[in-house]
Amino acid sequence: MKKRDSKKYKYTYAFEEGGAKMKSLLGGKGANLAEMTGLGLPVPQGFIISTEACNEYSIGKKFPKGLDQEVELRLVELEKKTGKKLGDLKDPLLVSVRSGAVFSMPGMMDTVLNLGLNDDSVEGLILQTSDERFAYDSYRRFIQMFGNVVLKVESSKFEKAISKKKEENGVKLDTELTAEDLKDLVKIFKKIVKNDAKIDFPVNPRAQLELSIKAVFESWNNPRAKVYRKANGIPDNLGTAVNIQTMVFGNKGSDCGTGVAFTRNPSTGKKELYGEYLLNAQGEDVVSGARTPQPIKKLEKEMPKAFKQLISIMKTLEKHYKDMQDIEFTIEQGKLYMLQTRNGKRTAAAALKIAVDMVSERLINQDEAIGRIDPSVLDQLLHPRLDPNAKINVLAKGLPASPGAATGKVVFDADKAEEMGSKGEKVILTRWETTPDDIHGVIAAQGILTSHGGMTSHAAVVARGMGKPCICGCEEVKIDLEGKVFRVGNTLIKEGDIVTIDGASGQVILGEVPLISPIISSDFKKLLSWADKKRRLGVRTNADTPEDARKAREFGAEGIGLCRTEHMFMAEDRIVHVRHMILAETDKERSEALDKLLPMQRGDFEGIFQAMEGLPVTIRLLDPPLHEFLPNLSDLKVELAELKHKKAAQYKISEKEKLISKVRAQVEANPMLGLRGCRLGITHPEIYDMQVRAIMEAACKVASKGKIPKVEIMIPLVSHFNELKLLRERTISVVEDVLLKKKMKIPYTIGTMIELPRAAVTADKIAEYADFFSFGTNDLTQTTFGFSRDDAEGKFLPKYLEDKILEDNPFEVLDEDGVGKLVAIASELGRKTKPNLKLGVCGEHGGEPRSVKLCDKIGLTYVSCSPYRVPLARLAAAQARLDGAEAGAREK
Amino acid sequence: MKKRDSKKYKYTYAFEEGGAKMKSLLGGKGANLAEMTGLGLPVPQGFIISTEACNEYSIGKKFPKGLDQEVELRLVELEKKTGKKLGDLKDPLLVSVRSGAVFSMPGMMDTVLNLGLNDDSVEGLILQTSDERFAYDSYRRFIQMFGNVVLKVESSKFEKAISKKKEENGVKLDTELTAEDLKDLVKIFKKIVKNDAKIDFPVNPRAQLELSIKAVFESWNNPRAKVYRKANGIPDNLGTAVNIQTMVFGNKGSDCGTGVAFTRNPSTGKKELYGEYLLNAQGEDVVSGARTPQPIKKLEKEMPKAFKQLISIMKTLEKHYKDMQDIEFTIEQGKLYMLQTRNGKRTAAAALKIAVDMVSERLINQDEAIGRIDPSVLDQLLHPRLDPNAKINVLAKGLPASPGAATGKVVFDADKAEEMGSKGEKVILTRWETTPDDIHGVIAAQGILTSHGGMTSHAAVVARGMGKPCICGCEEVKIDLEGKVFRVGNTLIKEGDIVTIDGASGQVILGEVPLISPIISSDFKKLLSWADKKRRLGVRTNADTPEDARKAREFGAEGIGLCRTEHMFMAEDRIVHVRHMILAETDKERSEALDKLLPMQRGDFEGIFQAMEGLPVTIRLLDPPLHEFLPNLSDLKVELAELKHKKAAQYKISEKEKLISKVRAQVEANPMLGLRGCRLGITHPEIYDMQVRAIMEAACKVASKGKIPKVEIMIPLVSHFNELKLLRERTISVVEDVLLKKKMKIPYTIGTMIELPRAAVTADKIAEYADFFSFGTNDLTQTTFGFSRDDAEGKFLPKYLEDKILEDNPFEVLDEDGVGKLVAIASELGRKTKPNLKLGVCGEHGGEPRSVKLCDKIGLTYVSCSPYRVPLARLAAAQARLDGAEAGAREK
Repeated sequence: MKKRDSKKYKYTYAFEEGGAKMKSLLGGKGANLAEMTGLGLPVPQGFIISTEACNEYSIGKKFPKGLDQEVELRLVELEKKTGKKLGDLKDPLLVSVRSGAVFSMPGMMDTVLNLGLNDDSVEGLILQTSDERFAYDSYRRFIQMFGNVVLKVESSKFEKAISKKKEENGVKLDTELTAEDLKDLVKIFKKIVKNDAKIDFPVNPRAQLELSIKAVFESWNNPRAKVYRKANGIPDNLGTAVNIQTMVFGNKGSDCGTGVAFTRNPSTGKKELYGEYLLNAQGEDVVSGARTPQPIKKLEKEMPKAFKQLISIMKTLEKHYKDMQDIEFTIEQGKLYMLQTRNGKRTAAAALKIAVDMVSERLINQDEAIGRIDPSVLDQLLHPRLDPNAKINVLAKGLPASPGAATGKVVFDADKAEEMGSKGEKVILTRWETTPDDIHGVIAAQGILTSHGGMTSHAAVVARGMGKPCICGCEEVKIDLEGKVFRVGNTLIKEGDIVTIDGASGQVILGEVPLISPIISSDFKKLLSWADKKRRLGVRTNADTPEDARKAREFGAEGIGLCRTEHMFMAEDRIVHVRHMILAETDKERSEALDKLLPMQRGDFEGIFQAMEGLPVTIRLLDPPLHEFLPNLSDLKVELAELKHKKAAQYKISEKEKLISKVRAQVEANPMLGLRGCRLGITHPEIYDMQVRAIMEAACKVASKGKIPKVEIMIPLVSHFNELKLLRERTISVVEDVLLKKKMKIPYTIGTMIELPRAAVTADKIAEYADFFSFGTNDLTQTTFGFSRDDAEGKFLPKYLEDKILEDNPFEVLDEDGVGKLVAIASELGRKTKPNLKLGVCGEHGGEPRSVKLCDKIGLTYVSCSPYRVPLARLAAAQARLDGAEAGAREK
Repeated sequence: MKKRDSKKYKYTYAFEEGGAKMKSLLGGKGANLAEMTGLGLPVPQGFIISTEACNEYSIGKKFPKGLDQEVELRLVELEKKTGKKLGDLKDPLLVSVRSGAVFSMPGMMDTVLNLGLNDDSVEGLILQTSDERFAYDSYRRFIQMFGNVVLKVESSKFEKAISKKKEENGVKLDTELTAEDLKDLVKIFKKIVKNDAKIDFPVNPRAQLELSIKAVFESWNNPRAKVYRKANGIPDNLGTAVNIQTMVFGNKGSDCGTGVAFTRNPSTGKKELYGEYLLNAQGEDVVSGARTPQPIKKLEKEMPKAFKQLISIMKTLEKHYKDMQDIEFTIEQGKLYMLQTRNGKRTAAAALKIAVDMVSERLINQDEAIGRIDPSVLDQLLHPRLDPNAKINVLAKGLPASPGAATGKVVFDADKAEEMGSKGEKVILTRWETTPDDIHGVIAAQGILTSHGGMTSHAAVVARGMGKPCICGCEEVKIDLEGKVFRVGNTLIKEGDIVTIDGASGQVILGEVPLISPIISSDFKKLLSWADKKRRLGVRTNADTPEDARKAREFGAEGIGLCRTEHMFMAEDRIVHVRHMILAETDKERSEALDKLLPMQRGDFEGIFQAMEGLPVTIRLLDPPLHEFLPNLSDLKVELAELKHKKAAQYKISEKEKLISKVRAQVEANPMLGLRGCRLGITHPEIYDMQVRAIMEAACKVASKGKIPKVEIMIPLVSHFNELKLLRERTISVVEDVLLKKKMKIPYTIGTMIELPRAAVTADKIAEYADFFSFGTNDLTQTTFGFSRDDAEGKFLPKYLEDKILEDNPFEVLDEDGVGKLVAIASELGRKTKPNLKLGVCGEHGGEPRSVKLCDKIGLTYVSCSPYRVPLARLAAAQARLDGAEAGAREK
């Protein structure tokens, strides 16, 4: 990042100067505080230090030039507006210093509250509030928070001091401590700071502020923030803004409170009041889940006036933002203050319902609704749910914080969850409450269960964002961390025991529960029907079985883009014939084996053609290296060594030796780049002949009974047009032979995979012999990068992603600059030869939203993906057509 | 090939109509006969059927429309010119029907002589020659040749009949047979034809001619012609012309003869008379080696007039063609006839000498001289020769037919030579004489030894063309084919015994002889100095040792383009430390192993820098997968099974198991695409650190004693610019650390290999972090085609080449359309970022002439190849600059 001429540069903005559109400069929180200020809503006054200042700070580890002075001027301004002064003996100004990134990162960065207190100003606070206990409680909270966040003193040291004080006084609750006790604690806390941080606690509020701002800047790069960004695809170079805002207190007494609310239900999307609050508490108490809060409805009775104002403001905000809002408020002595509003995180189901409802309410149009949904969350809705007919043993019931069903082993800490998760084990992270420090465990877990905290607690918010099932505040669950067990009544659940949670109902169930297919909601159908009208790109499916084909059609697939024939070869009743075929010593032996496979393959294709009822079916001829079908060579060698040691019969030894030598002959140094794909078709033409015959015989049979199949035969791994030329001729001659014998006409085309760089750069010549191209982006990624997927993902890709050498795993997200460029080159060359050449993608990328959008940009005809990803691809394809908008990315 | 409108088409040309420039239409022989006719030289009259007619024939297997009539008209014309008539009772016209391809394919296709004879015309021939014996000898020769070539009767059947006749008459030589005997043989031959070919011998000369023309057309596609074309890179679609020419007879008596001569010595290039003749013989007798002919010098005494005319014509021809001519002549009753002239095949040494001499003689200019030499023959001159100090046991001495030394096992037939050769065994093909049917054996052999035939025999011509050592006419060698042995005096040599032949001296030596480096001739140096002036492309070498570096500098290398560091890791005293490094369990263990390797690597680099004396040295950091340095997993597993069976001590078993698990962890599915190259540098940075340190410490040491090395550090296998960015920074920091400690300044640059398609298409970004690119065309070919070289060459490439799916092995000849396109794209993108970016090629293609020319065309800075190929690259690079000319390709 280039350093700007900082003299002319502006790093701070009063709330009055900003607005919601300035998010990238002011962060989400700041921009929305400014926006609310502009709307005339009751927002405590303050100003914002921009993300640019943070980025400059990150380079030099010091304040950019001029920031000091700007902050000083803003403070003076703020003092003027509020009539209070920082550190004042009589009426001190207290401020909060909060992080605020462009994309919400709940709880990942640092915050300091009650800033401005010292031994002088605490007297002023007493003067203003006539509440010595409150003043000293605020003071000790400030030292505690500042000590921990800014000076890096372990928070447990403060906690211990509090516990000790309570013990001494023989009380149990913090609230039972007297003003005198708290005053004493302030002294003790200062000593702790002095001992640990080796400095006197800074009494000058200006110094407090400067240190706090720096601490917030630095928290942008703390480990949990990095993990969260990585998990959520948020760039590392955005920086955080810092919000400096006058403190208001929800903890001044019983006419005070603080709460969090959503304008709609973020779990179901229903238009209803949803939220929680705590009387006499500060905001952190609600979010952290430390106290389980009250449903917002109750506020109506307790503070009707404030409640009414709140409801009115929420309506205003939703109408203004045209989206569901997630707000934070504080009531200080009956007066309502708005501390935050933002577009609320929601489950996939809620996102759909809200988008569709808002179209009905004429708040947004169909395009906006399409743009609202992150396609990658859709598959949450397609995932299995509990079988309602299953007998289940419900252990407990908590708050249904994030829907979906998950089964896994119980674990009690985030590290363990990550450790087991990385081995592929399914775990349910079970905590008293979760904190931002648990983020890596939440990512690794199938689902989250907490015994405390509400629907808006950290665990709930994060889980909903990730589409993971979550149950919160399940108080029946009594966790014993030391013993690594939890109890529900008399039932003891140990670490590693299996439970199932249903985040939609809040049920915690003992053991594994059978799952069934989901029901697709009408919102889902409606939104996707809008997407279908919008999109240009076709969406097909990759399916090798009639079941998959049927499932994909339910999800809206318009054909099969890739039917792999090798899976059919792997079936138990076939592998023996496949091995005979491969190891045949004579043409006769080989053709006998193929004769046995022919009717089986024909049957496979019949089922698929029937399921697709006349929609196009692209069948790829055999692709993998033959030795994938053979036994392992090392194993055979060990077996031989053992036969010899056992002095087994000579014929057995000879047989084994013969097998070894045949298998050895098939072994390759780099099978990915060896005898496979069309190379097999050229060296073993009888295999492709059999497959083509099976395809066409099946097509004839299905055509004679129902809809005529649309057959597309695909030749894999072509590098030179001559390969395709040869195999095309041979394929046609087998096809025509079958059609002549059956006296039928079946439409068929012959195309090829473009999955090698050479095919891409010579696509003009290849197109002369191809009716269609299908980009095999998995293999194309392997050869373009020179990455063997198996080896790369095991050996160096994790480090590459960790170190940001690559932004994304190119096997998940299509690499635009490299692989995408080759796809674009091939498309252009192919269409130069045949302007209407059909172009598809059948790698896994066909079901990844950003890749789908890239395919649309390149101008492909269709994408093909696994059945469960078909809806996602339909939506992503529609978003690709939305003008300009960074569709689907805004809900990060 | 498109069929033309044959009515308007012309398929035949009288000699008077053609010329040397019409080679592609008239074939080499026809075009030159026409040219000589135009020069007024004594050429027997005739006409030519074009190669186009042959190609049309190849499609439809019948004469193209109109050819019949054209041939008829030409015949009438010929009869008019000669005053003779085909089949005439009194003065019959006899013709030869000879093949004649665009590129000379000596003896590979068919020829029919004496055509026009039947029971009637033989009488006319007697009338004209008054020589009944000659007439019937010609007649039986005709039936024999026509029977074999056209009617496919086995020639041994005719031979047997002759032997039987000789036996009956108690004579030994053919010449002892009387006219009556021959007349009888004619009858017997006709019966053989009738029995074997199931037709009466065709008596109508028109029918004889038509059948002969077709037979010549078909001989274009006979197996030996195909093999020859493949070995010599001649396209299959050129076709042969057919030359129909009035017969002249060298076998009419002692004032007759026939011979072959070169205008210069084709073995040494010396300007001297070189050739052989036979009195009273037909041309085939000389070429076939059936009789060992007389040196041409002797002709001066025997036929001074004809000799003088011959010498004069040879001078004319060489001056006219500006190249050494290979001519055939016949003397009929004292009158000289020219039957052929062509640019003569020659050894590499001769080619050089002739080209350089002709420049001195002002026959050609330097550019023409450069264009004359096929670069691929140069390495013949660089190959080792016999150590003159070695004690050798000379068995025999023959004619020095093609220079060079070769050692191998004696084999007696071509099939066996091919069989053993394909297994990598070195063989010396030892024959009485070679025939065109032996071509596959000649290709497979290291050298050729024949007991018969002269310097212009088939074996000699073919061997010289291929640059293989050859000794001909070594009559002391008595071959017993049945017994598979040969004797020289009392010494018995069995099949499989080792001999060495020296084609320059003609010595056949028992056993193996030590070889030493060749002496580079002044012609060689002169021609290459001209090439150096002409070329734009730099030429470097691939060298890993000081010896290779020195050798390459002798051959003109201007730097090292690729110094591989992995070979240094493989040395016996190092592999143990390398394994320790790889299998280290702690950083400490690893760094200890690296500390042991550091001084060794430093020593390697010192030697190389010293050898290169300040020329640039590009060092590639470690590239191959680490498991290449480890023991084989299968072997370890078998060893473990055996330890268990032997009930070995538990600690031994555990140790083995531990090793297995460590090695297994390194095994990759596709090591070519796995953890190697810069991926190693990123995951194991300490390895590259050690290498960079060793390089720079070596550079400092060498600089302090002599010339300052020019260090170029090369990072392999980059796919994304971030890889290079990271490693560049790390490399610089190690380099600067060394230079600071040593208080020295050494110029260094850091560049990368472009060997992955992604690197090629994102070369603009990569160039930002690279001081130079070096195209690793071996790996780039692997990933662009998706071919693992090991697997492809073993499993399917041979079939691809056989079936012409690929014209060339892309690992030998750079694939212009695919890989070359990526190289061009990368060059353009790289130079867009850095206009002066240095671009090189360091794959094996850097030493292949066509690939070098492609590199020049793309605009690369230099090529780098193995030391022995440096001269070749220098020449090819110069040829690339010759305007338009298909330089180097004309001498096919």
